[in-house]
Amino acid sequence: MAKERIVIIGADAAGMSAAGQARKLLPGAEITAYERSPHCSYAACGIPYYTAGLVESETRLIARTPGQFLERQNIVVRTRCEVLSVNTDEGSMTVRDLESGKEFSDRFDKLLFATGAVPAIPPVEGSDAKGVFSLSTLESGIAVRKFADEERPKRVTVIGGGYIGLEMAEAFSCIRGLEVTLLDKSPQVMNTFDPDMAEFMAQAIREAGTELRLGEGLVAFGVKDGRVRTVITEKGEIETDMVVMGLGVRPNTALAREAGLELSVRDSIRVDGSMATSRPNVWAAGDCASTTHLITGKPFWIALGTVANKTGRVAGISMGGGGASFGGVVGTAMSKHCAFETARTGLTEKEAAEHGFKYVSTVIKTKTRAGYYPGAEVMHVKLVAEKGTGRLLGGQIVGGQGAAKRVDILATALTAKMTLQELIDLDLGYAPPFSPVWDPVQIAGRSLLGKMGGE
Amino acid sequence: MAKERIVIIGADAAGMSAAGQARKLLPGAEITAYERSPHCSYAACGIPYYTAGLVESETRLIARTPGQFLERQNIVVRTRCEVLSVNTDEGSMTVRDLESGKEFSDRFDKLLFATGAVPAIPPVEGSDAKGVFSLSTLESGIAVRKFADEERPKRVTVIGGGYIGLEMAEAFSCIRGLEVTLLDKSPQVMNTFDPDMAEFMAQAIREAGTELRLGEGLVAFGVKDGRVRTVITEKGEIETDMVVMGLGVRPNTALAREAGLELSVRDSIRVDGSMATSRPNVWAAGDCASTTHLITGKPFWIALGTVANKTGRVAGISMGGGGASFGGVVGTAMSKHCAFETARTGLTEKEAAEHGFKYVSTVIKTKTRAGYYPGAEVMHVKLVAEKGTGRLLGGQIVGGQGAAKRVDILATALTAKMTLQELIDLDLGYAPPFSPVWDPVQIAGRSLLGKMGGE
Repeated sequence: MAKERIVIIGADAAGMSAAGQARKLLPGAEITAYERSPHCSYAACGIPYYTAGLVESETRLIARTPGQFLERQNIVVRTRCEVLSVNTDEGSMTVRDLESGKEFSDRFDKLLFATGAVPAIPPVEGSDAKGVFSLSTLESGIAVRKFADEERPKRVTVIGGGYIGLEMAEAFSCIRGLEVTLLDKSPQVMNTFDPDMAEFMAQAIREAGTELRLGEGLVAFGVKDGRVRTVITEKGEIETDMVVMGLGVRPNTALAREAGLELSVRDSIRVDGSMATSRPNVWAAGDCASTTHLITGKPFWIALGTVANKTGRVAGISMGGGGASFGGVVGTAMSKHCAFETARTGLTEKEAAEHGFKYVSTVIKTKTRAGYYPGAEVMHVKLVAEKGTGRLLGGQIVGGQGAAKRVDILATALTAKMTLQELIDLDLGYAPPFSPVWDPVQIAGRSLLGKMGGE
Repeated sequence: MAKERIVIIGADAAGMSAAGQARKLLPGAEITAYERSPHCSYAACGIPYYTAGLVESETRLIARTPGQFLERQNIVVRTRCEVLSVNTDEGSMTVRDLESGKEFSDRFDKLLFATGAVPAIPPVEGSDAKGVFSLSTLESGIAVRKFADEERPKRVTVIGGGYIGLEMAEAFSCIRGLEVTLLDKSPQVMNTFDPDMAEFMAQAIREAGTELRLGEGLVAFGVKDGRVRTVITEKGEIETDMVVMGLGVRPNTALAREAGLELSVRDSIRVDGSMATSRPNVWAAGDCASTTHLITGKPFWIALGTVANKTGRVAGISMGGGGASFGGVVGTAMSKHCAFETARTGLTEKEAAEHGFKYVSTVIKTKTRAGYYPGAEVMHVKLVAEKGTGRLLGGQIVGGQGAAKRVDILATALTAKMTLQELIDLDLGYAPPFSPVWDPVQIAGRSLLGKMGGE
């Protein structure tokens, strides 16, 4: 009897988490992962810090090489191999070796889509000029760093005011000390935050030295001798030596769609809690798969390393015949720009309204530590709670060192469906170097409870 | 009709939190707080940092003065006034003005005991010598700082390896740069941690420059010319210029006992969820009152500023006729010694065993940030979970910057009675400057689930 054959498309966080779990449960199976890029199993979230030079070598971002996977876990990883088509009925697929250009076919008993996400690239003139980059894979990060190191740009324009944009602006301004312009057509940075909280971020970005141009759309790139020279916007022109685009990502699911898999929100692959797709023996995990939002109960899509690791783990256990289920997410995300930290979880005001919740909200200003303790920095907490019940719906945190990771308290409380009163009653850690005596999230809880007439 | 009269004994965190809440609900009531010491409403947890000189003036520790309480909230605070006896049936009390020495009587309709805790002082010879201090009130902190500033001791002995002891050792060694010996008769520091985790702390204390002498009891102080010269232990003599004792505290409840109030665990005042005592119209809050341990469900006593603030708030609302209830605590506490952070919540292995739980536990070593991100420091997480159900029972965290406040995730998960699987599924915040992709508490959760055969 032939060995059971497991094929994984995409050898990054989700794919290789799944491979590892499947290997534990199925010691005798053949496991092969195909990866389009030259690298597998790397820390994508570390790319901005690598381009900044904070992480010396790209090898530091790579958790494990194909050689190590083979040696330690008997998992075959074939990089620079693109899966072109999949037949889920027959368990067959066509693959192209991107090095040789040759195509070959493969078969599988079980298949995992871990194809990740692809960056949005605006169809504007000049996008292909030298000096214009879009950050997504490690390969693209290496190209950005190489250009910055070798071409020594003085003026850098970052397009997109989301996580990647803010982190890349930090890389070039605070860390490399260049002249940075951050451009976004939206009137606020970080659209996953409410405008009032985004305003604190905008202020911090400007204070850290970046020129922030909001409400200003990209029109084209001005190119001379094949090289980017200007960013042409709706409102003017920005002289620049380099451009990095971080305009968000979408699920990479063209292959899955062609293979007949049902799609869900934002064209992510529809999966159940075990990460099984609509086709038997086919699973999906990571940035290409849908998940459930635990507050709205609705299908949701988010591209994050944490979720990719978790869903990859569950998919691997499921493929291995074990019982595992992933309940969903509350939409937690965090980042920093220079010394300014940001985090969010659950629903913003805007999202609460969109999902039909009646809500109340508050924003409080406090300190990261006891006010008298050296290094206490300003932070703001916004909470959104359901009117009437006081159930916590979401939270946003911005501020100095130590502010953002407090989002975990809110994420945990949201998962447990706690009310503001329950949040206030939590027995959280306190000592003057770490927190005011009421933790900032509890100060916000008291403020909001007060607004509701409860305090 | 006479105004309703509320009297509060003890004008610190619990007492003044209660006074503030009562004032909101009873705008017409008379509210008087008696305080034995010269200071009211100060941040007791900041005293070690004040003695270290990190907090310049003691006024920075004082949230509000008697004058401010009177002006802003019409609350009378009488410092240097000691309540000598209370008659709860008659609603009367005797008070001594410690300045004049005169006694007077007062009456109350509602009474709050917020008498706090008193430090344990060993009955050894030489305790009253110049240079021997016990840290408890702000007054004692001022005395310690004055001695350190004026007498310029070179060698300091700290007695007691608990929170106060470790913080005072930090104040004198890492901050003031003196030669410090830390003495404890117990074989480990920090008895609220399991020995394996305490061992990491002991190592950090030694590496930070303090001479740690464990398993060595205090016998007496050697005194010359009225001044401490040596600490005489079971094993030898330590030359010293100054001694600070931090040997723990016990509830200050002699007055409550004499007034006939029922006592609970460790002679704390027995209260219900509304902080009402066994006598009508008498409440208790803060370090003098009992509470409930949410994991064991049993009466519990802990002396912490966070709990004092919370129970004070509830007592004040109750006294004001509002509905409020305090469910209890999970025993969260945190601290640091120089750059080394420590935190604990829930039950240790030892406590789990004492309370009859069948448990499993694990200790993992990881980093505070993504391993490749600059400044990632070593941290250890220990988790204790119930055998069979996988319910989280407690956690201990030690390590570098950013390690300890993660205890909040565990405290929140404990309160929500989460299992290890639920802990692993939590959607916690991640970005390379803040965390590995699986938060350290989740790495520990996966390790323990693995031990239980669940992963």
